[in-house]
Amino acid sequence: MKGSSFSGKCALITGGCGFIGSNLARRLLDLGAKVTVVDSLIPEYGGNLFNLDGIREKLSVNISDVRDEHSMKFLVRGQDVLFNLAGQTSHVDSMSNPQADLEINCRAQLSILEACRHFNPGIKVVFASTRQIYGKPDYLPVDEKHPIRPVDVNGINKMAGEWYHILYSTVYGVRACALRLTNTYGPRMRIKDARQTFLGIWIRCIIEGRPFEVWGGEQLRDFNYVDDCVDALLLAAEHKEVNGDVFNLGERNPVSLRALADLLVLVNGGGNYTVHDFPSERKKIDIGNYYSDASRFHAAVGWIPRVSLTDGLVQTLSYYRQYLSQYV
Amino acid sequence: MKGSSFSGKCALITGGCGFIGSNLARRLLDLGAKVTVVDSLIPEYGGNLFNLDGIREKLSVNISDVRDEHSMKFLVRGQDVLFNLAGQTSHVDSMSNPQADLEINCRAQLSILEACRHFNPGIKVVFASTRQIYGKPDYLPVDEKHPIRPVDVNGINKMAGEWYHILYSTVYGVRACALRLTNTYGPRMRIKDARQTFLGIWIRCIIEGRPFEVWGGEQLRDFNYVDDCVDALLLAAEHKEVNGDVFNLGERNPVSLRALADLLVLVNGGGNYTVHDFPSERKKIDIGNYYSDASRFHAAVGWIPRVSLTDGLVQTLSYYRQYLSQYV
Repeated sequence: MKGSSFSGKCALITGGCGFIGSNLARRLLDLGAKVTVVDSLIPEYGGNLFNLDGIREKLSVNISDVRDEHSMKFLVRGQDVLFNLAGQTSHVDSMSNPQADLEINCRAQLSILEACRHFNPGIKVVFASTRQIYGKPDYLPVDEKHPIRPVDVNGINKMAGEWYHILYSTVYGVRACALRLTNTYGPRMRIKDARQTFLGIWIRCIIEGRPFEVWGGEQLRDFNYVDDCVDALLLAAEHKEVNGDVFNLGERNPVSLRALADLLVLVNGGGNYTVHDFPSERKKIDIGNYYSDASRFHAAVGWIPRVSLTDGLVQTLSYYRQYLSQYV
Repeated sequence: MKGSSFSGKCALITGGCGFIGSNLARRLLDLGAKVTVVDSLIPEYGGNLFNLDGIREKLSVNISDVRDEHSMKFLVRGQDVLFNLAGQTSHVDSMSNPQADLEINCRAQLSILEACRHFNPGIKVVFASTRQIYGKPDYLPVDEKHPIRPVDVNGINKMAGEWYHILYSTVYGVRACALRLTNTYGPRMRIKDARQTFLGIWIRCIIEGRPFEVWGGEQLRDFNYVDDCVDALLLAAEHKEVNGDVFNLGERNPVSLRALADLLVLVNGGGNYTVHDFPSERKKIDIGNYYSDASRFHAAVGWIPRVSLTDGLVQTLSYYRQYLSQYV
């Protein structure tokens, strides 16, 4: 992708101190954009100021919560594009505190869209949704025609948040689209615990020289390296063909969790893991094999994930070997 | 249906001063149930104390808002069944005040389900959902396999509210099911304006001797008389086969709006209407022809709508001729 269209443009990133947001901010700066990041820095979520290390002076950092509608009313003004990445992403937290999940993934999204509609109707919005909303798949790979069947409160609320974006695009002409991300990994992901992805805690353990736990092991999953995910977000921002629509990201070569664990050990040059049955609490919301069909997004904007799982894991481990102390 | 299973049972009805809730309360009293109704009596919604005229002494009326989680925590205790009918139902209001719609149709639903889970996990919950969440149909009649594609904020939030019920049933074992109601009409419906259904304002106009407005006219719709809807709610409460599942209500004989208007004039013994193009504001969310396939619910519990549109309109007009002043 060229990306030259971002030179001189103003971009706002909610969740901009988080994993994907901070990687996106770096790329946008490289492309010459004027970047503002918004983040609540709530400890349990993905925001970490160290993610902006080395670029803090080159962008504007606004610490506020997307639930703060007055802050958002101000911040959306004058922006060309909003990458709307802030969200509560934990399955488990959404079940133990469903109201907080609702506030962030639904109420705040409505506030943001209302702010765009009233104060910056010409903005383009790219919303980060999730493959979680498909639930347990009927068939593989899962395309966008697959029924939506969320298995947790987080999935229900993300689904509503996604629909608000499409609705505001259709009814009010606020140009918006949504990408349903699959498992994304790479430098700056949360590794303190499994709130973003189980792969985070695996990486932490292996670097700390401790065995990590594999639950099940035979389930297939697909992974996108964060640079590929950033490519997708930028392409979605650039292409008007995607407005009012929803697309899967994904990777055509899924791996089993056990194969992923073996690859991680190989790439790390050592390490151990143990295999466990699913805890009964998680079994109820287990979805079995899952991988996405991203061919519609490929056809629409030309997106192809370029970084292999091996290369991505090499980059990721290298990053955390250097900066582990900032993430634990 | 027998309905004898309700004798001596405790039933809670949210939105119980509203159109469907008050008709349901009357039936449950006839069946020997102990009934508590909850209603906020917010003027724009459907609650009207006159709907309980003549039965006020036979049931317990609790005026509170379902958003008041402490009230709900108390009220769900000791109930055998919860008919969860409270909701914001207006398309237009959901677009002008999306946050209020979210609070009622999502946040309050989560509070109610959390209250059931913690304080009365053995309760049975029947949730009133809506055919609105299907959006503009791909095919007719619309069955439960039809993709969900809400066209307004209300549809998105009702969809989330419905999914919470299914989730709490699947994950936590709180027995719950949802019925997707189509257009329901009959005595005690809101006729002050078109917030519940356009048919309300038609009925008011024709009884007041004024012409009513038909927008479009060729669109097909299906209608259920409120007594048939009450049958459906009771059957859903009685049958464990429906737990964790969602079913359409509906009527196999749809009518065009113009045919409905003609029938209303005929049944009334006179009256006039004018036909108009859709206002541009509404055109964006118009869904064209719509009618539901309720055969899955019929197969599950034996429900069949029994009251013809003509008979239902006769009953309805008769009611409002007598009690018009209580509803305008």
